[in-house]
Amino acid sequence: MVWARKYVLKKHYTGAPKLSDYELVQYELPALKDGEILVKAEWIGVDPYLRVYDSVFKVPYDQFGLQVAIVQESKDPDYPVATRVVSHKGWCDYSIIDTKAPVKEVPWDIFYKLPDLKGLSPSLGVGAIGMPGATAYFALIEVCQLKAGDTVVITGAAGAVGTVAGQIAKIKGCKVIGFAGSDIKVKWLENELGFDKVFNYKKVNIHTALKEAAPNGVDNYLDCVGGEISSIIISQMNTFGKVVTIGSISSYNADPSQLPKVTILQQYIVPKRLTIKGFVIWDEYKRWSEAFTNLINWIKEGKIKTPEHITEGFTNIFEAFSGMLDGENLGKAVVKV
Amino acid sequence: MVWARKYVLKKHYTGAPKLSDYELVQYELPALKDGEILVKAEWIGVDPYLRVYDSVFKVPYDQFGLQVAIVQESKDPDYPVATRVVSHKGWCDYSIIDTKAPVKEVPWDIFYKLPDLKGLSPSLGVGAIGMPGATAYFALIEVCQLKAGDTVVITGAAGAVGTVAGQIAKIKGCKVIGFAGSDIKVKWLENELGFDKVFNYKKVNIHTALKEAAPNGVDNYLDCVGGEISSIIISQMNTFGKVVTIGSISSYNADPSQLPKVTILQQYIVPKRLTIKGFVIWDEYKRWSEAFTNLINWIKEGKIKTPEHITEGFTNIFEAFSGMLDGENLGKAVVKV
Repeated sequence: MVWARKYVLKKHYTGAPKLSDYELVQYELPALKDGEILVKAEWIGVDPYLRVYDSVFKVPYDQFGLQVAIVQESKDPDYPVATRVVSHKGWCDYSIIDTKAPVKEVPWDIFYKLPDLKGLSPSLGVGAIGMPGATAYFALIEVCQLKAGDTVVITGAAGAVGTVAGQIAKIKGCKVIGFAGSDIKVKWLENELGFDKVFNYKKVNIHTALKEAAPNGVDNYLDCVGGEISSIIISQMNTFGKVVTIGSISSYNADPSQLPKVTILQQYIVPKRLTIKGFVIWDEYKRWSEAFTNLINWIKEGKIKTPEHITEGFTNIFEAFSGMLDGENLGKAVVKV
Repeated sequence: MVWARKYVLKKHYTGAPKLSDYELVQYELPALKDGEILVKAEWIGVDPYLRVYDSVFKVPYDQFGLQVAIVQESKDPDYPVATRVVSHKGWCDYSIIDTKAPVKEVPWDIFYKLPDLKGLSPSLGVGAIGMPGATAYFALIEVCQLKAGDTVVITGAAGAVGTVAGQIAKIKGCKVIGFAGSDIKVKWLENELGFDKVFNYKKVNIHTALKEAAPNGVDNYLDCVGGEISSIIISQMNTFGKVVTIGSISSYNADPSQLPKVTILQQYIVPKRLTIKGFVIWDEYKRWSEAFTNLINWIKEGKIKTPEHITEGFTNIFEAFSGMLDGENLGKAVVKV
């Protein structure tokens, strides 16, 4: 018998998530049945969507999320002990997975073998070679269809998606302008990750800064944050520009009945024939491996760096989550169990 | 020699256009050269884009716009006297057109023979069988790709585009919900044009009214107005819903440096995977005749009615324009010269 621990959300967030919203529960796992595996979480990703999806379930619910785990015990020869798998088991240390259960709903049923990372850290399975990396890949390459010479703007540039996205855009020959929330992030994105220009959105006049950095206008905008900054960026887009909207972190903690008001977009959408498209990576789940193949190659070639903000210890997972929502992370926020 | 009159915009609008912004100028037209025709305006359309495009030019400029005119004198055998043509000559009574001049820029160089309207009023050449009709056609059929059973919402429903669009959506088997600005318009759209449900946006709680009229959500939204009403409608869209944005009349008179603020859209765009697309009918200019063929048939079959708000007299054109911007028109606002 194995004792497992999991975080259960007892009550819905009001505003920013609090540790007291959760309960850490210890429980005994049953014996394995045929076709099942016992896995131990090795890396747990904390991602902004956990905040949003709180409204999907009734409380109490087990805190879901993506994790890389190692098979400890196996009743499926296809998954021998020590195999690494990715699942949506979330904030728990040990869990049992029915390997034959069909993936009916993504992300809830996500389960796959970690691809061969060619020696890279398995933590990337919840980062650059996981959901956030695939998001950056499909959002820019398929939705925006980046062309060499395009000017690409990325908000939330220092986040798990933004860091990969900026480097993909550089690989594609684009000019990349980022917005992030601290001077340290700004320097780091410019100096370490090769962004052409990054601004601390808290300190600059966004309108003026962007005008100077993108005097010929913006062709593609990866919108991770929503808010007034997005209205300003969209106001500077070129004709037939494309906006791919993957998040709205600036208003995740807002009361849904009193969402913030921002400058109207229609006045720019029409004359510039802009396309704004909401993108959710779950829709492309069956094709993630396509993104992973390219991302692994780019990382191995040194074209993409994979910064991570690592929090150690299973019981520090809430702090990692909360810190990520506050923008403390440089790169992918991940917990080493 | 022919004396012509035209309206010249002397100074840029500040807020709502004023008659005093214009000067009525009388001038002599030169003799025709080979390949030229002298035309007399018969119907002049007043459209919202005239308000917006004020910022495109330096003043003074001749007020542009679409008109149906009749050839009075011809030095091109392809355009004999009495031929009707459509051009962008705007607010003038007589003008000279070089029939061989290439259409380099739309709308500025628009010029074509009025199609055979099969006995319908030539005024439709600036309405249902003109730019507004083509807008409704391509926006709904190509951008939204309407499917039978879809729920379609239209703002500015009583306008030149909205009236045609609602009826196209009915032809395609959709449920059509409109928003307009007076009780008279509401009744008229429901009783005369067959909209399933129309609301006076000035009187209802838009959120509640739409929830009741579209309990299963909105699949397509033809956004003619922008503003908070658009944020509310977009908040009730279904997954993979499509918004085609063709105008933002609610903020046309706003100071461009102080555009109105509305509820943020990103919070709906992402989870619902919405697509919002700015659409400008000039881009489809070469294909207008395709729309006209269908529209003429539908009108002849009685499936589309073509209400017009006719102002008589060339010198009343400003009142027609101003009234249209204020929403006085039921259907296409047109001036009979």
